[in-house]
Amino acid sequence: MMNKEQLLPDERIDELHRNGYQIIQNPNKFCFGMDAVLLSGFAKVKQNETCLDLGTGTGIIPILLEAKTPGKQFVGLEIQEESASMARRSVLLNKQEEKVQIVTGDIKEASSIFGAASFDVVTSNPPYMTNQHGLQNPNLPKAIARHEVLCTLDDVVREAARVLKPNGRFYMVHRPFRLVEIISCMTKYKLEPKRMKFVYPYVDKEPNMVLIEAIKGAKSMVKVEAPLIVYKEPNVYTDEIYDIYGY
Amino acid sequence: MMNKEQLLPDERIDELHRNGYQIIQNPNKFCFGMDAVLLSGFAKVKQNETCLDLGTGTGIIPILLEAKTPGKQFVGLEIQEESASMARRSVLLNKQEEKVQIVTGDIKEASSIFGAASFDVVTSNPPYMTNQHGLQNPNLPKAIARHEVLCTLDDVVREAARVLKPNGRFYMVHRPFRLVEIISCMTKYKLEPKRMKFVYPYVDKEPNMVLIEAIKGAKSMVKVEAPLIVYKEPNVYTDEIYDIYGY
Repeated sequence: MMNKEQLLPDERIDELHRNGYQIIQNPNKFCFGMDAVLLSGFAKVKQNETCLDLGTGTGIIPILLEAKTPGKQFVGLEIQEESASMARRSVLLNKQEEKVQIVTGDIKEASSIFGAASFDVVTSNPPYMTNQHGLQNPNLPKAIARHEVLCTLDDVVREAARVLKPNGRFYMVHRPFRLVEIISCMTKYKLEPKRMKFVYPYVDKEPNMVLIEAIKGAKSMVKVEAPLIVYKEPNVYTDEIYDIYGY
Repeated sequence: MMNKEQLLPDERIDELHRNGYQIIQNPNKFCFGMDAVLLSGFAKVKQNETCLDLGTGTGIIPILLEAKTPGKQFVGLEIQEESASMARRSVLLNKQEEKVQIVTGDIKEASSIFGAASFDVVTSNPPYMTNQHGLQNPNLPKAIARHEVLCTLDDVVREAARVLKPNGRFYMVHRPFRLVEIISCMTKYKLEPKRMKFVYPYVDKEPNMVLIEAIKGAKSMVKVEAPLIVYKEPNVYTDEIYDIYGY
């Protein structure tokens, strides 16, 4: 087991409530959000499948998918070395190193790094915001995780399409306000949206997330699922959220 | 007022619970559904605007929009003369003839009939099903209203785009399983989806309708609205549905 001495300044260890797994994060940089957890509940990875997470940050998605699914191999690609280092140390901390690898590299080059048609599943919780104005410092880790500073939606979808095998599945979480752009972009790269789930913070509020499964080369026909409502009342999650979080 | 003698065999008069308006329908042919009523609640027609309903059937949408909005003129285009005749008699019954006109004609020729850029608003509750197999008789009114026998989604969206003025608004209700195709088709004709609302029969069920507002020539950015839940419990509508129905 890792001890506190192996943490860098400002880093901390958080519980994941799943297999006893933990994750190292630096709250001054970026901490994972509900979107990553919901994506790990929405994505399906089957026995013996391989999975690539584009822009893995501190590795939350491959770490949770290894815990939740019978997949064979989980690779996280991350451009920021500081985040990749935390992800690698979390993998060791959880003894997941045989099934989870963290690679430092650029999403835009994913298909050169891994080769075309090399994964059964791709996941991504990419930066949501196109708009870079108002950004005090676009080099800060939080800005890179939230805004399209180092890669665009088109880059993520294009590389997902390239590294996926035929009929491979792409799982993404994003903001509903970009839905039309997301669908246009996916169909451009022959990733056909097949399942969609809107996440509404309350039953009477507009959704703030959308979860999408797209299949490479599939025919047009999408299943929009039952709504995912996050809160029953202020500070009280619905049962579905407790299930996904594993409490 | 019309009396019973002016009804054709099998026709009946139903109450609309709005301005005392009524509608003539033939239950052996086709009766309007909740989708048309929800579309009339979702669509916005402003003072002095003109509105065309593509495939108006018995005229439910222009009749309700005249009741609910301050629009100037409402035109319903319908290819089946029997339905158009019922629509015209309902308009007379409701004394709406100064503001509502019913035209017999083909959606595929809407822009030739009315001219390009001739309406501020277009609405449509088109046939949902592409699949014609299993249809015993594709000439029956119900088949024509439900299946793409006489016009396709592409026809409806293309003609809507043509008859709309720049920045004109198109409102459509459809089935969520065709969402990807709908969005691709709309963007192909420069109708940008700007508002979307999913209709879920129950809070834990998948949606069976989607309401979409698209604006001709607008930029990409869509607002997905709060969910519309139809039933609180079996046979009990939610308050929002009662509001839209005007009870």
